[in-house]
Amino acid sequence: MFKKILYPTDFSGASEKGLEYIKKLKEAGTEHVILLHVIDSRTLNEVRFYDGLEEKLKEETREDMAALAKQISKLGVEVESHIRVGVPFREILNMEKEDGDISLLLLGSHGKSNIEEMLLGSVTEKVVRKCTKPVLVVKR
Amino acid sequence: MFKKILYPTDFSGASEKGLEYIKKLKEAGTEHVILLHVIDSRTLNEVRFYDGLEEKLKEETREDMAALAKQISKLGVEVESHIRVGVPFREILNMEKEDGDISLLLLGSHGKSNIEEMLLGSVTEKVVRKCTKPVLVVKR
Repeated sequence: MFKKILYPTDFSGASEKGLEYIKKLKEAGTEHVILLHVIDSRTLNEVRFYDGLEEKLKEETREDMAALAKQISKLGVEVESHIRVGVPFREILNMEKEDGDISLLLLGSHGKSNIEEMLLGSVTEKVVRKCTKPVLVVKR
Repeated sequence: MFKKILYPTDFSGASEKGLEYIKKLKEAGTEHVILLHVIDSRTLNEVRFYDGLEEKLKEETREDMAALAKQISKLGVEVESHIRVGVPFREILNMEKEDGDISLLLLGSHGKSNIEEMLLGSVTEKVVRKCTKPVLVVKR
């Protein structure tokens, strides 16, 4: 039931929380974790004048991702990592659809952009509303 | 980590889904389930002319609650049941606060009042936003 987890992360404080839960969910059958980080294309569009920003962000993301994947791997769970550019909640829902096998989404309650979230609803809220799989929302 | 679960229910389709998850969460350490049903005081206020409605609703709720508690109990998990009258999301948050020990809330994604939900945001969304504990949202 919790065999394959989709774990979108922005590497904010919630990441370590997420790890604790993966450890526990392993006892309930988790075998595989899909890590996903979405680089927000809207942010990229705002700062296009800064040449090479996208490449720089991707490079940083690859490092953060590798570190997190290593920690999850140590728990004895298989990990795969994906970095995408787009609108975060849409890319998360796309990934859920593409991989028909996902049994649970693991999400932090708050990401990085707190003021925007209070006005527009968080990525988490949009995903909880629109996804088809169960979601475990972990509080910071 | 999933030792004590608060499971608010309106006895809609999500109840059976919830049972499946309790079964699985038991493998990750669940020992105790608090069942909560909130009779919406706003509905009661609208139909006060119907004498004895509150008592009738409570009686029905007690029966539904006993049946659900029995099923959970069969899974080898301790159960306690609570029926309250009030605004559902507030009573759920109150219960979370009163019992300092709760480790997870288990919620269905949609309750009974779907049109109202689309306009105002569901009980689940309000609880996910305001509670302090992790929430597992189960889809219908």
